[in-house]
Amino acid sequence: MTVFNFSAGPAVLPVPVLLKAQSELLNYQGSGQSVLELSHRSDLFETILHETESLLRELMDIPDEYRVLFLQGGATLQFSMLPLNLATNRQMVDFIDTGSWSQKAIKDAQAYATTRILASSASDGYRSIPVEAVTSDADYLHITWNNTLEGTTYTKAPQVGVPLVADFSSSILSEPIDIRQFDVIYAGAQKNLGSAGMTLVIIKDELLQRTPQSSGSYLRYDTHAKHHSLYNTPPTYSIYLTKLVLEWIKEQGFETVVQRNRQQAAALYTYLDQSTLFSNAVAISDRSRMNIPFSTGQVDLDTQFLKFAERNQLVNLKGHRSVGGMRASLYNAMPNSGVDALLSVLHRFEQGER
Amino acid sequence: MTVFNFSAGPAVLPVPVLLKAQSELLNYQGSGQSVLELSHRSDLFETILHETESLLRELMDIPDEYRVLFLQGGATLQFSMLPLNLATNRQMVDFIDTGSWSQKAIKDAQAYATTRILASSASDGYRSIPVEAVTSDADYLHITWNNTLEGTTYTKAPQVGVPLVADFSSSILSEPIDIRQFDVIYAGAQKNLGSAGMTLVIIKDELLQRTPQSSGSYLRYDTHAKHHSLYNTPPTYSIYLTKLVLEWIKEQGFETVVQRNRQQAAALYTYLDQSTLFSNAVAISDRSRMNIPFSTGQVDLDTQFLKFAERNQLVNLKGHRSVGGMRASLYNAMPNSGVDALLSVLHRFEQGER
Repeated sequence: MTVFNFSAGPAVLPVPVLLKAQSELLNYQGSGQSVLELSHRSDLFETILHETESLLRELMDIPDEYRVLFLQGGATLQFSMLPLNLATNRQMVDFIDTGSWSQKAIKDAQAYATTRILASSASDGYRSIPVEAVTSDADYLHITWNNTLEGTTYTKAPQVGVPLVADFSSSILSEPIDIRQFDVIYAGAQKNLGSAGMTLVIIKDELLQRTPQSSGSYLRYDTHAKHHSLYNTPPTYSIYLTKLVLEWIKEQGFETVVQRNRQQAAALYTYLDQSTLFSNAVAISDRSRMNIPFSTGQVDLDTQFLKFAERNQLVNLKGHRSVGGMRASLYNAMPNSGVDALLSVLHRFEQGER
Repeated sequence: MTVFNFSAGPAVLPVPVLLKAQSELLNYQGSGQSVLELSHRSDLFETILHETESLLRELMDIPDEYRVLFLQGGATLQFSMLPLNLATNRQMVDFIDTGSWSQKAIKDAQAYATTRILASSASDGYRSIPVEAVTSDADYLHITWNNTLEGTTYTKAPQVGVPLVADFSSSILSEPIDIRQFDVIYAGAQKNLGSAGMTLVIIKDELLQRTPQSSGSYLRYDTHAKHHSLYNTPPTYSIYLTKLVLEWIKEQGFETVVQRNRQQAAALYTYLDQSTLFSNAVAISDRSRMNIPFSTGQVDLDTQFLKFAERNQLVNLKGHRSVGGMRASLYNAMPNSGVDALLSVLHRFEQGER
């Protein structure tokens, strides 16, 4: 059965990546070992780790003065590690609140620092990114670049005079960004980078000079930086899958992937905006290209649509329980045929088919 | 090329597990999705998680009053989470020091609590487990059950009147244990349970009543217990691989696996004890069945042996850099043919073959 998987994450992976992983599963490059069995201290794995970092640096144009760390625990563990490592001067963190994931980051930071919300789009139901200029004198400002649940995205990094930390979990490598505008970028791998279990942290060298709050070794960025992500056993297989994903991107050219993302999102928004049944409520300038929520405005009809979609092999289109309706996540690995199939099913449903 | 992999972890996996993973890699149970692509909120994944826990409870005979958590970050993150969650009354933790991993646990706990070493085998180079009776009035006592580097193991849990926390990373599911003698057992998955990236924590319910030191949500056991390891995205593929490993154990019978482990270790120790070239220095009563260090006593000869072994398809036999010599890790997935091959290569080298 071929299905198209619109999950918000863990999410669809490129078929060539899965085929490569499958072909190498029992015997990696003639070693007689699976990547799953490779010691993290082996030359074979160290080469995988090194190549993954090199590909990332190349595709994202990461300057030398940033360190690339391969950690575990998802964005959720970063919500603790960021204040532990960076809220060390004034023990104060500023946030721009753009929805559910911002709020989780704020709540966790409160265990370690005073938190302030400089701007919020709560008043319009998080259907936009706040536009007001903000200034900060905190240890850093935290933003959520792409909001997976609400379907919004920043298009420009706010400049506030303190280090800028951005959660890129659901949009990393989906569009070009200028790393130099940020001081920390982090992302779980299970959307655009590979599989659940690996968390990417890109951090400016100078932030590693801050003395962390009293913490065990895993929770300190300087531990991982000093040991090149090999202080303890890293999530070896997730790192390997990320390498395969990055090779897949490089092979096509990053620009091709970016163009495909833009075209896919544009096609779906165009449909939704002309539809008399389905709609997307997000401010046009702030619409995410990765996560596109939509609904008929009627719970029963949404449920009918979800069933109809599933019968037509479109899975995981259900919106997050806190938002309702539907959500199509169009990560890098979503093929054009998946979006075509979604458009066709939307159209048929709108025409009355059930 | 067939090789035998004696790595201390990540380590050898059972071939039937790898074959099953390979066959399901692109299409899990007819879903049209890879396990790597499954949403952690999907019925398919929740079934995997549930079955993994059930198998563990069955094979390890885990009583109902213990919770089973599937976390990330390895034993190393537990070195922080344990004191954060459990050193909350007297903020004091007692340790028995049996080597390198004990010391790492102690060092990390010092960020959160006063630490005391009740007993240590440092004076004999960690070639034994301390035998003296100890008493404790700390928040808990921490022990390292099997010492991967030093090749020692406990055979009996110390009883000290405070909760007992044990690192079982390198011996979990290798032998029957009585969970009721412990309050927390934890283990990275990359030795006997599956792949790097998943950390198992088995914790007695009543310890979840302690109020953790101020911490973000990921670092609190109660978060994960309340959400059945689904508060945030768990390491889905590592959990799936653990399920396959547990099914493989169940199919043969746990007792068969235990017997095989005992026979393999006995065969290697018997050889080493009668050898005039190779020897193992660990006190006989405290010898690990999982990690068996040995050496010729001469660095050059050890190096020659390692090269000879590698030419004969025996890989990752090099001892940890802090110990030197050789180390054979004989985890559950090591086939008898691997130990036979090792014995043959040891014998040939001892006979003068190079």
